Amino acid sequence: MDDRTYTVDAEPGERVTVAGWAHEIRDLGGIAFLIVRDQTGKIQVKFAPDEMDESLVQTGTNVSRESVVSVTGAVEEEPRAPTGVEIVPESVEVLAPADPELPLDPTGKVDADLSTRLDNRTLDLRSGESKAIFEIRSTVLNAVRDYFRSVGCTEINTPKIVATGTEGGTELFPLTYFGQEAFMNQSPQLFKQLMVGSGLERVFEIGPIFRAEEHNTPRHLNEATMIDFESAFIDHHEAMDVCEGTLRAAYEAVETDCHEQLETLDLTDSFAVPQQSFPRLTYEEAIERINATGELDEQLVWGDDLPTEAEKALGDDVGGHYFITDWPSEIKPFYIQDYDDDPQLSKGFDLMHPRMELVSGGQREHRHDELVAGFEQQGLDPEAFEYYTKMFRYGMPPHAGWAYGVERLVMTMLGLSNIREAVLFPRDRQRLSP
Amino acid sequence: MDDRTYTVDAEPGERVTVAGWAHEIRDLGGIAFLIVRDQTGKIQVKFAPDEMDESLVQTGTNVSRESVVSVTGAVEEEPRAPTGVEIVPESVEVLAPADPELPLDPTGKVDADLSTRLDNRTLDLRSGESKAIFEIRSTVLNAVRDYFRSVGCTEINTPKIVATGTEGGTELFPLTYFGQEAFMNQSPQLFKQLMVGSGLERVFEIGPIFRAEEHNTPRHLNEATMIDFESAFIDHHEAMDVCEGTLRAAYEAVETDCHEQLETLDLTDSFAVPQQSFPRLTYEEAIERINATGELDEQLVWGDDLPTEAEKALGDDVGGHYFITDWPSEIKPFYIQDYDDDPQLSKGFDLMHPRMELVSGGQREHRHDELVAGFEQQGLDPEAFEYYTKMFRYGMPPHAGWAYGVERLVMTMLGLSNIREAVLFPRDRQRLSP
Repeated sequence: MDDRTYTVDAEPGERVTVAGWAHEIRDLGGIAFLIVRDQTGKIQVKFAPDEMDESLVQTGTNVSRESVVSVTGAVEEEPRAPTGVEIVPESVEVLAPADPELPLDPTGKVDADLSTRLDNRTLDLRSGESKAIFEIRSTVLNAVRDYFRSVGCTEINTPKIVATGTEGGTELFPLTYFGQEAFMNQSPQLFKQLMVGSGLERVFEIGPIFRAEEHNTPRHLNEATMIDFESAFIDHHEAMDVCEGTLRAAYEAVETDCHEQLETLDLTDSFAVPQQSFPRLTYEEAIERINATGELDEQLVWGDDLPTEAEKALGDDVGGHYFITDWPSEIKPFYIQDYDDDPQLSKGFDLMHPRMELVSGGQREHRHDELVAGFEQQGLDPEAFEYYTKMFRYGMPPHAGWAYGVERLVMTMLGLSNIREAVLFPRDRQRLSP
Repeated sequence: MDDRTYTVDAEPGERVTVAGWAHEIRDLGGIAFLIVRDQTGKIQVKFAPDEMDESLVQTGTNVSRESVVSVTGAVEEEPRAPTGVEIVPESVEVLAPADPELPLDPTGKVDADLSTRLDNRTLDLRSGESKAIFEIRSTVLNAVRDYFRSVGCTEINTPKIVATGTEGGTELFPLTYFGQEAFMNQSPQLFKQLMVGSGLERVFEIGPIFRAEEHNTPRHLNEATMIDFESAFIDHHEAMDVCEGTLRAAYEAVETDCHEQLETLDLTDSFAVPQQSFPRLTYEEAIERINATGELDEQLVWGDDLPTEAEKALGDDVGGHYFITDWPSEIKPFYIQDYDDDPQLSKGFDLMHPRMELVSGGQREHRHDELVAGFEQQGLDPEAFEYYTKMFRYGMPPHAGWAYGVERLVMTMLGLSNIREAVLFPRDRQRLSP
């Protein structure tokens, strides 16, 4: 079956077999057209009752929309056909008939709500827009991995079933593991840190993470695909360089390899690779700048976390990606290192897109005693994390890293209004199936 | 900190900063050597009390093994040094001291049992052998992905939290999802099939799967990393071609890129890329051949599943990878298609390594009514899988695919005796942490 020709490759003068979906049937009386669609595009098949067998015409023109068909015939030039060629069929086979009533219109001509589309992803992804998003997502993942390789990373896979969460017992899905209580891991954070203390030094992982957060918003998911990076012997600014590198690589790959998809999404003109280095504002500069916009009802004071409207005000002001560095220690997790000369200040950073936070990262605390003290300050029991803290007694190098969800990257890159558009089968409070 | 030089790159005449672990200290009286190890190798640092500051010598020679150090100095040729060069230090900094008592010896000179090694992966991966395994694993994953791209695959990510298991309620880890019962997915099978019915046609996924199997053997895991492939418009033999292609690509990449790792594992002479096409035996031929070996106490009859000793006998007989095709329908899952002219026989296949089963795959049932009948024959309730079966009513193309665990591939490729050697943090009945 693999000797079929993709529709996009059918050249005049060839005899081909194309297989795909019956996209549309146009009966003009006397002559009829079947449009066959596959992953690469569409092609017109001409049925002229005068010139061919009656049963062939019947099969080709009575097929229901979205049935799977295989058509063999000669490719001829036809300037009036949408792609300039058409097939004059010798044979048509219906490989899988479709019910005439479809839960949504895969041609995208009739709008369906998101919930219906997510319930019927198979049909939804036959439309150009949805398919384009996931082809871009695949391109992004590949580009990010290539970038990681180019800076000497080893790929790792860390466990998803764990005895304790990264940041204690909150926001975890509990699970029964052979009679024991266990959890779905909310982040590879602790495991990737253990690896940079091993002989691997610089690692990445792309895999699922699970967060039992109750909020149901257009930018949160309860299961997401996380891109995690961690490296020994670098500081937080070098980690930011790598982070920026992956993002730029992703944008560049999409610009180079996804012309058609960007066109389908009507983004050809607006899509742009971020050209400059992302500005790095300290937290202090950030709140000053936010307060100066006058967009907030109440001025921010040092120590406040940034509310959504503050992120928005600053995002509008900066107008592109930017980092916020040097956060107050108190609002960053225990594994982020503080400045020795100012322990109120941490070496944590966030990468912001004007629309939302994209990345969290930082220089990590690699000194055993300081790490354990950090646990206690945040009210966590270091005993429960002994498998992790113990390794810091045997020579843990200075290290830094970060993580971001591929869904937020795709969402911000393509201007999607809901993060669920960037996941095949999203998981949220209401949605556990399909 | 990233302006350090890797030990492997230190050239005579240069002034460098190397950072790594204190691998060994040799005090010869009058002169002492500190061996610094990083990801790329080792380098000797010379301490000559006559030629340098006393405090420098003290720092460099009193450091405990496995502490993290940073050494700056001139690189000089020294034929008696292990790598032919040594550093004459100007400064030595201890970045992270290690406890003098280590839970295992990272130089690998003292053997540790697997359990101790798994409890202390950070230290274990500082030894050449363990590190080499995971560098090879990373190379394998990259090679397989590149191969997938070369045959036109789109990368997908499917959900790991699901409402129903792939093959019903057996061997699933139960989980509480916002008050609802849910499970960790045991395979992307049903989701990847839904995708080949969409506009993507040919997909792959590399991600975790979860199986609550109770057996605790050297070749089973309760959490594994699965490589899944599925394609529309191909049959099971074409799926086998792709499967073989990924394996060969993985072996070739390791042969090309992992010389040093193979040497560390003492596999340089024995490692070989499989050169020929893997033989494809039908199940019937397989049982005849197994019976002919005389290795089994009792002869196999048609319909029997192959016990481990049968796989072993046939593996020894064939002497390399081989496929078994055309299995009895009864011992293959509902989603495998049967031959129309002999419904007892399925289009399922397994790829066998002489030591064990590696891959399961097959042509899938793409016809709605036959699929639903298959559910019922296997005692499963098609209602629970309606999200899946429903999509087969809207034009599901003929398709085929397969899956294998990267751990089994690495285990068989490198002749590891226990599959846990190929997972950073394995999960089994006893092991939930780290």
